[in-house]
Amino acid sequence: MVNGSERWGFRCNPELKGAAAVNIRGILMQLIGSVNKDDPRPVLPLGHGDPSAFPCFRTAKVAEDAIVEAVRSAQYNSYSSTIGILQARRAVAEYLSRDLPYTLVVDDVHLTLGCNQAIQTILTALAYPGANVLLPRPGFPFYESLAASINLEVRHFDLNPKKGWEVDLENVEAIADGNTAAMVIINPGNPCGSVYTHQHLKKIAETARKLGILVIADEVYHHLTFGSNPFVPMGAFGSIVPVVTLGSISKRWVVPGWRLGWLVTTDPNGILRKLGVPSLPLPLSPLKCEWNCVVESIIDCLNMSPDPPTFIQAAIPHILQETGMDFFSKIIDIIREAADICCNRIKEVPCITCPNKPEGSMFVMAKLDLSLLEDIYDDMDFCLKLVKEESVIVLPGMAVGLKNWLRITFAIDPSALEDGFDRIKAFCQRHAKKQ
Amino acid sequence: MVNGSERWGFRCNPELKGAAAVNIRGILMQLIGSVNKDDPRPVLPLGHGDPSAFPCFRTAKVAEDAIVEAVRSAQYNSYSSTIGILQARRAVAEYLSRDLPYTLVVDDVHLTLGCNQAIQTILTALAYPGANVLLPRPGFPFYESLAASINLEVRHFDLNPKKGWEVDLENVEAIADGNTAAMVIINPGNPCGSVYTHQHLKKIAETARKLGILVIADEVYHHLTFGSNPFVPMGAFGSIVPVVTLGSISKRWVVPGWRLGWLVTTDPNGILRKLGVPSLPLPLSPLKCEWNCVVESIIDCLNMSPDPPTFIQAAIPHILQETGMDFFSKIIDIIREAADICCNRIKEVPCITCPNKPEGSMFVMAKLDLSLLEDIYDDMDFCLKLVKEESVIVLPGMAVGLKNWLRITFAIDPSALEDGFDRIKAFCQRHAKKQ
Repeated sequence: MVNGSERWGFRCNPELKGAAAVNIRGILMQLIGSVNKDDPRPVLPLGHGDPSAFPCFRTAKVAEDAIVEAVRSAQYNSYSSTIGILQARRAVAEYLSRDLPYTLVVDDVHLTLGCNQAIQTILTALAYPGANVLLPRPGFPFYESLAASINLEVRHFDLNPKKGWEVDLENVEAIADGNTAAMVIINPGNPCGSVYTHQHLKKIAETARKLGILVIADEVYHHLTFGSNPFVPMGAFGSIVPVVTLGSISKRWVVPGWRLGWLVTTDPNGILRKLGVPSLPLPLSPLKCEWNCVVESIIDCLNMSPDPPTFIQAAIPHILQETGMDFFSKIIDIIREAADICCNRIKEVPCITCPNKPEGSMFVMAKLDLSLLEDIYDDMDFCLKLVKEESVIVLPGMAVGLKNWLRITFAIDPSALEDGFDRIKAFCQRHAKKQ
Repeated sequence: MVNGSERWGFRCNPELKGAAAVNIRGILMQLIGSVNKDDPRPVLPLGHGDPSAFPCFRTAKVAEDAIVEAVRSAQYNSYSSTIGILQARRAVAEYLSRDLPYTLVVDDVHLTLGCNQAIQTILTALAYPGANVLLPRPGFPFYESLAASINLEVRHFDLNPKKGWEVDLENVEAIADGNTAAMVIINPGNPCGSVYTHQHLKKIAETARKLGILVIADEVYHHLTFGSNPFVPMGAFGSIVPVVTLGSISKRWVVPGWRLGWLVTTDPNGILRKLGVPSLPLPLSPLKCEWNCVVESIIDCLNMSPDPPTFIQAAIPHILQETGMDFFSKIIDIIREAADICCNRIKEVPCITCPNKPEGSMFVMAKLDLSLLEDIYDDMDFCLKLVKEESVIVLPGMAVGLKNWLRITFAIDPSALEDGFDRIKAFCQRHAKKQ
C-alpha cells in the first residue's frame, strides 16, 4: 500500500505521442484553426478526401434506403459477430469477386469500421517483435501513426513521379530483409492520383514473392478511376503472392462517415490457410507456412476491436447489389471534370506544377517551387498563409512524406474548385518574387 | 536484400494470443459450437447481455426515428471529428449532468464505439511502461484481454459476495503501489447484478484519493436498476477523485449493435485540466499534475481509432432527449420480473445458489456446488454439457474470474427464461449425485 499524499499525477502512454506526431487530422485541425474568422467567404476544403458535404456527391438513394430498412426491421440491434454478419460478408465476397479471376468465399472477408480499422488490424496482426513493413513515400500517414503506436518498424520505398508514381521496385528489394512482413500499395493512389497497370501490379507481386512478403493492397479508392488505366485489383495476382485487400464503401459511395470497410485475404489456391508445410512450387515451399496464424491473428485482433454497427452491416448486401451504374457514372463524371479543372488551373500558377495528371482517387500531388515565392518558407508555411489569407485548405506534402509538395483534393463541387483555384492563384501572385 | 526462396512464412503478434486467451466471445463461440444440432428446441441465450433479439425488448420508436431522420437528411455522411460531433457530445453532457451535482461541459465528453472502445481508450491512454490497473474479481474480462494486448499489468481486488459484492477496499489498498494508474468499478455490476450505495461509492472515492489513483467507472448498465438501491453515478464524487465514466446507449436502449458509447471525464473543479501544479488541497497538491496529459492521451488514442458512424452520432440528441419514461419503465419491469423468476427458479436447483439477489444490470452470479453432481468436473464442464444436452447457454464463472460459479443472464423474454430454468433443473436432476 502507498500513501496518496506522496503523489497525485498520471503518466500517459508515450507511444501515443509519437503516433500523434504525424497525422493528417492534426495538421488539418491546425489549418482549420488558422482560418481568418473575419473572412466572409466559405472555407474551401481541398485538404481531405471527403466530398460528401456537397449536394452533387449525395450518395445513392438505394444506399440510404438499405440503412433505413435495416433499422426499421429491428432485426439488427444485437451485437455483431467478430468478423461481421454472414450475409454482409457473403455480399462483399461476391462484389469483389466480380473483378477477380477466381471466387472469394465468405471466410476470406472480415468486416471493419472503414478502411482505417482494416489498416489497424493487419498491421497489428503482423506486429511481432522486430518486424517491419514497407510503406510507399509519398503515402497515407495513418500507416505511420498506427505503426508507431504499436512499435512496428516502418521502412519507406519511393514512388517515382517520373514514371506515373510507380513503385520503385529496386528500392523495395534494397530495404527488405528477413524481418519484413509486408509491403503496402495504395491503388488507385493516395496521394498521387495514380492508377497502376496490370503489368506493374504483376511486377509488384513477383517482387513480393521473391522477397517472401505479403502485399497489403489498400484499395479504398477502388473503381474511382477516370483516365486510361482501368482499376485492376491486386488480388488478381493472389496466385503469385498472398494479398490482403483493404477497402470500404466510403469513397465509391461517398459515405466515409458510415464506417463500413473490409479486410479480405486472397488465397485462390487454398494453400495458405493450411496448417503446416504448404505444397507450393518453389520458391514458396521451403519453410513452414505460418500464414494461417496471420488469419487467426487478424481474428484475434478484431475480437478486441469494435465492430461496425450491425444494421449498417445488414444494409451491405442491398448497397453492393442494387446500386446502379448510373450513380457510379455520375460520380466519376464529376470527379473527372474536377480533375481536369484542377490540372488546367494548376498550369496558371507558376509556382506549382503537376508531374502527372491524376487518373484515379481524389488527389493530385503538385510540386511547389519556393524559389518563385518571396516570403514562403516551406509547404506548411504555404498552407498556413493560404488558409489565413484565402480560407482555402490544402494539405502540405510533408504530411504525406514529400516536403515542399502539396496534396490537393479535387473531389469537391467543380464550382467550388474553380473558386479555390482563383484564390490560390491570387495568393501566389501576391507572394510571387518580384522580378 | 534477401532472397524469398529462403523463407516464406509470416509471424504474428504474440500479444494478441495472450489477449485472446480469456475472452467471453471465444467461450460463447465454443459453447454455441457445442449445440446438438438434432435438438429441435430453440437455443436459449442465458450467456450474454443482449436481449435485443426478443420482441419485448425492441428499442424505443423515437430512437429508430432519430437514426432514420439522420440518414435521410444526407447531412451526416462525412467523417466525424475525432472525439465526436458537437451536438452529440453536448447532448451526452446534458444527459449525464441530470444525475450529477454539477454540470458537465462538451469538452468532458468523448464519443466512442460502444463502451468497449471507451475501455480500450482509457486503458491505452494510461498504459505507460510499468503502469498497472486494478480490476474487480469477478469482472468483465474484456479489461483483462485488452490490457494483455497492450502489455498493461493487471492486479485484481475482490468483490465480497457476503456484502452485496461490494469492493474489498482493504484489498485495493494492499495491491496498489506507485505505478497504479487507476481502479475500475462496474456499477450496476457485471457480472454480479449489484448496485452500490452512495455510501460505498463515496468510500471508493476516498480510497482512490488516498492512493492517488483515478477511478474508471464502467456505467454501461446505468439506470438499469430494479431493487432498493437507486443508481448513483461515480461522477457524483468527482470533487473527491478524478473519475472517468464509461457508458453507452447499448443497454438502456437495448441497442448494443448500434455501437454508441462515451468516455466522460469528470473534473467539477476544473483543476485537473490545468497544466502544471494544481492548487488542490492536500493530499492532492504535492506533485506536478499530469492529468492534462491523460486527456490529451485519450484524444491521441481516439485520433487513431475508428469513430462512431456520423449519422448515429447525429441521432443521439433526439435519442437522449426524447425517449419517454414509459419506454424505460417497460424495460425495467420486464427485467425485474425476469430477475425474480431467475432467483426463484435457482432455489429449485440444489446445486446452484445465489448469495445476492440482483438489483441491477442483466446478470446474477450463482455458485455451483459440484459435490452434489455426479459427473461434472467444473463450471466449464457444466456449461458444455448443459448446452449439449439442453441447448441452454450459460457462461462459466471462470470466464469472469470466479471458478465454479455461473454467470446467468436473466434479461431475456420471461417465458424463455422459464423454459431455460426448466431445462437447467432437468439437467441438474439428471446429473445429481445419487444419495
